[in-house]
Amino acid sequence: MTQGTQAGRLSILGMGPGDPELMTVKAARILRESPVIAWFCRHDRPGHARQIAGDLLPPTATTLRFAYPFTTEIAVSDPAYLVRMAAFYDDCARQVADHLLAGTDVALLCEGDPFLFGSAMYVFDRLHERFACTIVPGITAMSGCWSAAQRPMVHGDDVLCVIPGTLDEAALTQWLEQANAAVIMKLGRNLEKVRRALRAAGREARAIYVERATQPQQRSMKLADMTGPAPYFSIILVPGREGAR
Amino acid sequence: MTQGTQAGRLSILGMGPGDPELMTVKAARILRESPVIAWFCRHDRPGHARQIAGDLLPPTATTLRFAYPFTTEIAVSDPAYLVRMAAFYDDCARQVADHLLAGTDVALLCEGDPFLFGSAMYVFDRLHERFACTIVPGITAMSGCWSAAQRPMVHGDDVLCVIPGTLDEAALTQWLEQANAAVIMKLGRNLEKVRRALRAAGREARAIYVERATQPQQRSMKLADMTGPAPYFSIILVPGREGAR
Repeated sequence: MTQGTQAGRLSILGMGPGDPELMTVKAARILRESPVIAWFCRHDRPGHARQIAGDLLPPTATTLRFAYPFTTEIAVSDPAYLVRMAAFYDDCARQVADHLLAGTDVALLCEGDPFLFGSAMYVFDRLHERFACTIVPGITAMSGCWSAAQRPMVHGDDVLCVIPGTLDEAALTQWLEQANAAVIMKLGRNLEKVRRALRAAGREARAIYVERATQPQQRSMKLADMTGPAPYFSIILVPGREGAR
Repeated sequence: MTQGTQAGRLSILGMGPGDPELMTVKAARILRESPVIAWFCRHDRPGHARQIAGDLLPPTATTLRFAYPFTTEIAVSDPAYLVRMAAFYDDCARQVADHLLAGTDVALLCEGDPFLFGSAMYVFDRLHERFACTIVPGITAMSGCWSAAQRPMVHGDDVLCVIPGTLDEAALTQWLEQANAAVIMKLGRNLEKVRRALRAAGREARAIYVERATQPQQRSMKLADMTGPAPYFSIILVPGREGAR
């Protein structure tokens, strides 16, 4: 940092589940004011968070597009996965730090809420001890789903479990037997395994499948009526006690 | 309904955890446009959702203030509790329905997210088959807390459990032993019981206490450092795996 320059602030902005109107007033304000704007994306896609930002992104902003080095080509269980992802996040953090050290604020955009399964956590972990940070929470994908599907989720003393579909089938079944209400995230190629676990736990009949919630292509149906592949960012809801009045 | 009058729409608006800037753009828009605005509150308080709305509430709007008939005077386990609460929600729903039948839109304000432990669910349950409804998700209290406390919560295949502090101590302990990450809501008079359960589950050292997140009086500290009573709307966070990089 140049002598006397004050470091910039890192703002991590939750962009919500998809509908740009579900951005918070605060995220929209910081986004419009930010000279440097960063986001994660697949190498072959524009990035969901970037799409939600739309034309709120200032045309004069410097943009940092963090394209994941791979998505499903290397298994999460492969030791090479963690090594390569750590190197990727190191590089993202270094790019952000360069701007902060030059005294420029940076906004990092995240779909959903940044601290609930968000890649931004890995950048935060690397920078928060050196730089001032603001975390702006976002509407989670699960809130977007249960609002769009109009399914109240938890009443009274229901326990809600938020479960990644990446768990193995036995673990999924055990969680689904115990949870009063459940949200299953990260479906994609895990869909059929999740379906078997729901069946084994006796919860399949109540399960609701929601895809692209709050977006124009939104679909929502009973899981039992759903066929075909699920995108990674689809969600299954198992609402808690029915008709608690 | 008068012949030919089209019924109004019920919009249930998540107002977020407390900072008015954490309202979504959509909730703020519908709030400003609504001719009738309703909210829940304690009989002796203005109501948290109403306070968040602030001067976005149109001065010409008709207001419906739904004051709970009691808060802690009758135990939840007392059969009279459910009977009296059901009668209260029936009355709230009837008041909302009167406006909808007259062709007027109604906005019902909720702190946090409407379908995660929100009283609005009881009004929705009574009206959604008769009237068009829009559910606008809100930033949950828990997202407000972990963002304010700057604590990433869940990485990878962590399971997050959202647990009401109203459960008995044995059940709390069991959930806290299993959860990778946990959020404990509804603290208030349950605080010491929750603390004992966290200790029994070996999770006390990682627990973070957050009070009035995103509001000017916000406090956040290690639970071990927290003494004194907790308000009902305080939260304990137990983040998942540390330092997953």
